[in-house]
Parts: sequence; C-alpha cells; structure tokens
Amino acid sequence: MIDDISIRYCDTFDKALTDPILIGGLPGIGQVGKLVAEYMIHMLGAEKVGEIHAIYLPPQVIIEENGVARLPRNEIYLYKAANRHLVFLVGDFQSTSNEGHYLMTDAYLDIAVELGVKRIYTLGGFGVGHLVYTPRVFGATNRVELKAEIMDAGVTFDRDEPGGGILGAAGLLLGMGSMRGIDAICLMGETSGYVVDPMSAASVLTALSKLIAVPVDPTQLNDRAAEMEKVVQRLLENAQSQHDEELSYIG
Amino acid sequence: MIDDISIRYCDTFDKALTDPILIGGLPGIGQVGKLVAEYMIHMLGAEKVGEIHAIYLPPQVIIEENGVARLPRNEIYLYKAANRHLVFLVGDFQSTSNEGHYLMTDAYLDIAVELGVKRIYTLGGFGVGHLVYTPRVFGATNRVELKAEIMDAGVTFDRDEPGGGILGAAGLLLGMGSMRGIDAICLMGETSGYVVDPMSAASVLTALSKLIAVPVDPTQLNDRAAEMEKVVQRLLENAQSQHDEELSYIG
Amino acid sequence: MIDDISIRYCDTFDKALTDPILIGGLPGIGQVGKLVAEYMIHMLGAEKVGEIHAIYLPPQVIIEENGVARLPRNEIYLYKAANRHLVFLVGDFQSTSNEGHYLMTDAYLDIAVELGVKRIYTLGGFGVGHLVYTPRVFGATNRVELKAEIMDAGVTFDRDEPGGGILGAAGLLLGMGSMRGIDAICLMGETSGYVVDPMSAASVLTALSKLIAVPVDPTQLNDRAAEMEKVVQRLLENAQSQHDEELSYIG
Amino acid sequence: MIDDISIRYCDTFDKALTDPILIGGLPGIGQVGKLVAEYMIHMLGAEKVGEIHAIYLPPQVIIEENGVARLPRNEIYLYKAANRHLVFLVGDFQSTSNEGHYLMTDAYLDIAVELGVKRIYTLGGFGVGHLVYTPRVFGATNRVELKAEIMDAGVTFDRDEPGGGILGAAGLLLGMGSMRGIDAICLMGETSGYVVDPMSAASVLTALSKLIAVPVDPTQLNDRAAEMEKVVQRLLENAQSQHDEELSYIG
Repeated sequence: MIDDISIRYCDTFDKALTDPILIGGLPGIGQVGKLVAEYMIHMLGAEKVGEIHAIYLPPQVIIEENGVARLPRNEIYLYKAANRHLVFLVGDFQSTSNEGHYLMTDAYLDIAVELGVKRIYTLGGFGVGHLVYTPRVFGATNRVELKAEIMDAGVTFDRDEPGGGILGAAGLLLGMGSMRGIDAICLMGETSGYVVDPMSAASVLTALSKLIAVPVDPTQLNDRAAEMEKVVQRLLENAQSQHDEELSYIG
Repeated sequence: MIDDISIRYCDTFDKALTDPILIGGLPGIGQVGKLVAEYMIHMLGAEKVGEIHAIYLPPQVIIEENGVARLPRNEIYLYKAANRHLVFLVGDFQSTSNEGHYLMTDAYLDIAVELGVKRIYTLGGFGVGHLVYTPRVFGATNRVELKAEIMDAGVTFDRDEPGGGILGAAGLLLGMGSMRGIDAICLMGETSGYVVDPMSAASVLTALSKLIAVPVDPTQLNDRAAEMEKVVQRLLENAQSQHDEELSYIG
Repeated sequence: MIDDISIRYCDTFDKALTDPILIGGLPGIGQVGKLVAEYMIHMLGAEKVGEIHAIYLPPQVIIEENGVARLPRNEIYLYKAANRHLVFLVGDFQSTSNEGHYLMTDAYLDIAVELGVKRIYTLGGFGVGHLVYTPRVFGATNRVELKAEIMDAGVTFDRDEPGGGILGAAGLLLGMGSMRGIDAICLMGETSGYVVDPMSAASVLTALSKLIAVPVDPTQLNDRAAEMEKVVQRLLENAQSQHDEELSYIG
Repeated sequence: MIDDISIRYCDTFDKALTDPILIGGLPGIGQVGKLVAEYMIHMLGAEKVGEIHAIYLPPQVIIEENGVARLPRNEIYLYKAANRHLVFLVGDFQSTSNEGHYLMTDAYLDIAVELGVKRIYTLGGFGVGHLVYTPRVFGATNRVELKAEIMDAGVTFDRDEPGGGILGAAGLLLGMGSMRGIDAICLMGETSGYVVDPMSAASVLTALSKLIAVPVDPTQLNDRAAEMEKVVQRLLENAQSQHDEELSYIG
C-alpha cells in the first residue's frame, strides 16, 4: 500500500549541506510565495533533489506541455550559494484536508531535520482586498528574538489588524517548527489577493535576499510586475469606461 | 510522525492534586464558556501547566501581538483554591471534524483521569436567537443525582424546548465522562448567540462560583457586560433610526 | 484511547438466542423505519440488551427530559416471541461520514453474526415527493430467492423508477450482509418524505408482522397516523386559503 | 473488521495472462469511459473475474431490476483476444473522498501488477461545455515515448487550453502507474459534458481499438449515438421554438 506521504530524494543528492536554510514557497494568496521561490530557483539555477507525493494532494494528474501527465507533487530544490546551501520547497498544491496540512508540514520538517536546516523562511501573500501599489512585506516569526533582524531588512510587524493568522504550510512551518526547535520566519507580501501578484513577490524577494545574504537579480520579476500592472490598469479602465457608458444611457 | 493529539505538561507541574475539579471553557456560542474560564484564570491568577495540540485544530498559526506565530492549541491552567485544585481547560478552537471532537474529548478525559478529577464543569452559551437582558443559566448533567445541588445554585433545567443537545466538547465531556465514571455538569448561559456575551458569562460565573465554593470577584466581567450592553444598544438605535429614515422616504 | 466504534452488552444478556431475526429501524426518510422499530419495541415490551457508540455519530450529547445528557447511540433490544427471538437495532442517528456508514454497518453485522442472526429486516421510507394516502410497501432483498415470500406479504418490487438505491445502513445491511452470507430484506414505506410519517410506518408494520409471524397490535400507530393526517390536512387548507386570499388581492 | 478496500477474484480465474492490457472505464464526464469499456465488454463477451468493494464508495446499495440490492462496486472483466488478454476495470462509482481516490487507484495498480499488466489505457471524457459534432480524442500519457504511437491512432495532444488535468482514477492511474513502472495512456473523448455521450464514446472506441489491435464492431454504439443526437436535436428545437414564442409575445 502506498504511504500517505512519500518523500523521494534523487540518487545523486548529497545530504551533507552547509548551514542550510529552507525556503518554502507553496501556492497561496496571490501565488506570492510560489512566485518568489520559483523565481529564485530559476535565476539561481537551483537543481531538483527531491519530490513529495501525498494522498492529501488533489486526486488528479497535471498534464504538462508535452502531453505527459504527472501526479501533483511538492518539490525540493537545492542551490549552493557562496556561504550556504538554500533548500527550496515548492509545489503544485497544498493539502485538500485540514489534517493533511498538519501531516504534510510534519513531513516537511522531517526533511528540514534530516538536512540539518536551522532556519526556515516561508513566503506568502497578505491579502488586503484592494489594489496595492507599493506592497509592504509583513513578517511573523516563531521566536521573538528574530524580530529585530527581520525588521532591519525592511519587513514590518505592524499589521493593521493585529491577531491574525497564517493559513496552511506557510504558517504551520512556524508553529510546528518551533516544537522541533527550528527557527522560522514568514514573509508576506501585501497583495490584493485578486490576481497573481509579481509586484508583491518582488517586495518579498528584496527582503528575503537581504535576510539570507544571497543576491538575486530582480529584473525579470520587476518586468513581470510591470506587465501585470498594465494588465490591471487596462482592466480598471475598461471597467471605468463601461461604467461611464452605462451612466450615459441613463443621463 | 506527529501524534494526532499531543498533551505536554510543564516540567514543574506536580500532578498530585487535592480534590481537583476540571472546568472546561472552550470556544462556542457567544464565547460564553471561554469568557468565564479565561476570566477566572485571570482573576485567580491560575498558572499554565500544560498544552494540547492536535491535527484536528484548524491548520494555521495565530500571530500574537508581538509578531510571534504559534500553533492553535488548548491549554491547561491550575489554581490552588483554599479547599481544592481547579484545573482549567481553555483554548483557541475546537475540532474542525466530527470524529476529532470525540478524539479530543477523549484526550481531555485522559487528562482528567491522570489528574484524579472526580467532577467536571463545562461552560457554554445557550443560544436563543434574541437579545436577553437577564440571562438564565441552564444546566445539564451526566448523573441525575447531581441535579438538586445544581438547582440550588440558581441553575434551571427547564429549557423552553425540551430534547435539545449540546454540541462539541462541552457536551461530549458529559457523555463520554459518564462512560469513565466522572461526574460532569454543563452550565449554559442564555445568550442571543449574535455577539460575544459577557453578560451571559457573568451569570454563569455566579452559578459556578457558588457550586465550586470558590469566590471570584465578578466586577470586571460586569463592567465588560455593561460596555457590551451599550454597544448593542447603540447598534439597535442606529438600526431603528435607519428604519425610520427609510419609512420617511416612503411616507 | 476510545474505540472508533464500541459495542457494549448488558451484563445480564444471554446471547444464546432461538432462531433470531434482526430488525433494523434507524433514522431515515420520514423516520419510517425508526417509527416501526420503536413502536414494536414499545408494544412488545422488548428489553434493552446493548448499546453502540461511535465517533462517526454527531459530536454532541442529547439532553433527556430529566436534564441528563447522554451520548448519541444506537441500541439493541431483545424480544422473545412465541417462536423466535427478535433483535431490534434502533438509534438516534446514523453515521455523519460516508466511510463511517460502512464501518458502523460492519459492526452491526458483527453483532448479527455473534448472535446467530440468519435473517435481517431493515425498515425505511421510500420518498416520492408528494403526499401519499395509501402507502405501498416496496421491497428489496439480497437474495433473489426471498422475493416470492416477501411479495406474499403484500410487498411490491415494482418501483416506478427502476435502478434506484437505498442509502445508509438500511441498504448496506443488505449489501454487506450478503458478503457474510446473511439473508436481508429491506421494507420501505412509501412516504412524501416531508414529514414524520406514521401512516407509512403502519403499512410497513403490517407487512413485517406477517413476514416474521409476530402479531403486533397496530392501533396506536394507526391513531398516530390519523392525527398526523389531520395535521397535514390543516396545513394544506391553510396553504389553500392563503393562496385564495392572495388571488383575491389581485382579482 | 472489513478492509477499507477489498479485491475478490472469482475462484475459476486463472491469473496467468498473456501480454495483458488494463482498460479502465470508470464513471466520469459524459460517462464516456464507462460507455466504451462496458460496450467492449458486451461486444467481446468478456467475462467477469473479480470485484472491488471499498468504504470510499457511496454508502448505499444499488437495486437491480430483479429487486436484488447489491453494494456499489468496481468490477474486473477478462477477454482473451487473438493476441493478448484484455483486463477491463469498470464500476458504479469512483471514490467519494479525495484520499480514497489515491487509495483505490493504488488497489487498481496492485491488481495490474499481480496480473502482469505492462500497459494501462484509461478512458474518459474531455468536457468542453458546448455541443460537439465530430468529437476529437485527446491523449495523455505517463511516458513521452508513447506519444507517437498514440498520435498514429488519430489521437491529438493539442488541447486548446494547455496545462489541464485529469481528475480521479483515469488520471491517477497514469501518475501512480508511472511510479510503479507501468506505461499508461488516457484517451479522452471530446464531449459537451451535459449528457451521456455515446458519440464521444464511439470516437474513443475507434482510437482504442486501433491502439490495442483488437477490432470491436462499433455499429451498436454508433446507433446509440445517432439516437442521442436526435434527442439533443429535439431539445434544441424545443428551446428555440420556446425562445421564438417568447419573442412573439414581446414583438
């Protein structure tokens, strides 16, 4: 019988890492975390070292461009920076069930422990329900001593509504990481939550890049953000002109 | 792998208790039970002795005011009254699944048995769907012999609609407690169910305080109830004036 | 830890039964099955011999008239007829989850096997979505050889829409019973499905009584049916007069 | 206790098969896969060799025309073609839960492995949301090397919207089959998704028949498709005439 959750590493993967950091960018609000992590993997040329499958992911396959179908999965990528290893956790989906979120996050932490990870960054969006032109980056951590360092990177802890929460793995990695003695920080890019938001992702990238002291050229992400801004602008103008038209019928 | 439900006691917690009573105030209708239990913990200066985590709680973290994220949890607090120990069960959430309610209540009873608890009080709200100015306290128990004592404390068993139920842990602790030979009583403050209801909580506090013979100064809770009453009054007046305005348009 | 499903027999229950038949009347459409089984228990004076609790039942307690709360449960009653033992399966609820239906029915069959039951009757309603004045009794079985006998008792197999199904334990006891070599028959009283339907229950009682050769005086059930008919008649008249009133406004 | 999933083979079933292919046609969009597989079983005279029951199937029984109720199930049929054995997987339902889809597909693959199956075809519909008069057959596979062969049979890989998915067992057999080293191909008949679609099924049958080199006379399926086309045509005309009538009221 299949395991509820299975982790498979590539045969060539050498698990002896140097001062590794885990960066989690799974799907979520505005796909912000996913955008940042996948962009970093792309720009840094990180290589895939493992896969996670689970019965808690949606029961379907994904058809890739070449017509090949594959299971939904989470993936582990590795990049050796000048000073340390970066381990990326990305994927197609999060758990479809409440309990599955806990169990999958537990598996992610098994990986972190096995690889000697001492710090986790989880990336996500912070939905505010309106367009945001200069997105802030909100922070949360699982150890209060980490706050000063995070704020130095331009991250704010002043959410307009205190006492909120972080759903799914981005949050649970902090809470459950703390139980296992692993420092964890969540960086959330302010976003409307209505569209995939590369502008919010760019803000998160800037902050994360500073925090891990690994420079990542943000040009392509900024370009994509500029494009998306044009799309949104056009949508807004269309909505406005339609609104005007309707008024002219009445007037 | 994580346990589905885990109970962690503080290292300093001495489990040899004197005639302990368990008081359960988990979230529910009007947050009545939670208000009473947390108020008692605050006023008596009870100290935290344990925590319960479970995959049945919502898959998220809660961000505290200082920006630190933590898992949703239930907590155990202890207070040594003149005559006996009070063990409080409070928390952020109840189970998100039906089966989880049974399994978590079973864990609460494991704690009760381990600590030698012979009687459990569960606190909750009794939603009536309309504003209540002098909330009654309704009772239920898992042993008919306990009724007289409870009624002596001003608790009524005359629900307007007989044959009702009590949802979640507040109820299951009675039903499942009975299976383990533990007396249990549920005190439910009458409440609209629309708002957090400190007035209903104050009524429950009065009854419980009498029953366990542990005095708790209700002043702060009454103050909060008075404040909430003003808020509700203002909402009602606004609704009325808006209604009048609408009528004046028509008339 | 609690069992997912637990069966408890009374200490005094002697499991050596004579030619026992299991009669299942759990809640369902029009509460027909429950009405019949509980009526038979009442009229025959069957005595309770066991209880079933399960985490698949709703997570709540039921408050009885005396203010005592108890877990939702299924119950086993026993009656010694002239020629054989009747074992009744009744209860507050069925499973809240799909999988739980299978697991609970499996537990019911464990009981049947343990008690030497060779035939099961499950009772239910057959919802037709309109008022029914002379309810037919529809049958289904898990062995085609049983049909003739059932039809002799006035039960019809001609459902207007072929290819239907029977939901929950009333159905699964046939399907899963067959896997264990136990004959099973479902008797479904035609009912609107809108109200608790003692008239439909009376029809089922008549058929079942013939089939098991145990006479049960139907008077009280017929009385209840007559009362319910008056209630429904009154509701219909009110609806009609309201309809007429509305028309007179327009006309 | 029952197994969550149980597989039962007929006693007479000889598992030593020749170059066996598994053809999966479980219920889904337009019932296309089910239509094709059941039509092949009927036309080829395949014989039933096994049954699968599971607590993940809907908790009910199905009443057959003779009044006999049976559990929902999946079935295995076997046909010995000139060159090879065909193993069919058909059934009443798919899993009701997300996790169950994975677990049941894992059981299907256990069967495939046990029978020495080296290639799986899963059949389904590809819903496009509008009527289709000459349905294409879309393909997906779990190994890119299989594409050329499939395209030779007239199957296209050019979905209008790239990056789609295949839900349920039809998809998971590809993804999970790949994990077990079994080649798998999904053939999806273009269909509106609104009605049971024998025309789409006929297209899939043609492609599959070519791929497995087992001729199946499509006449009866084409007849059924022609009938269904008339039904749909009539529905469309009725809708049109009703629309015209409404306009004539206004005009």
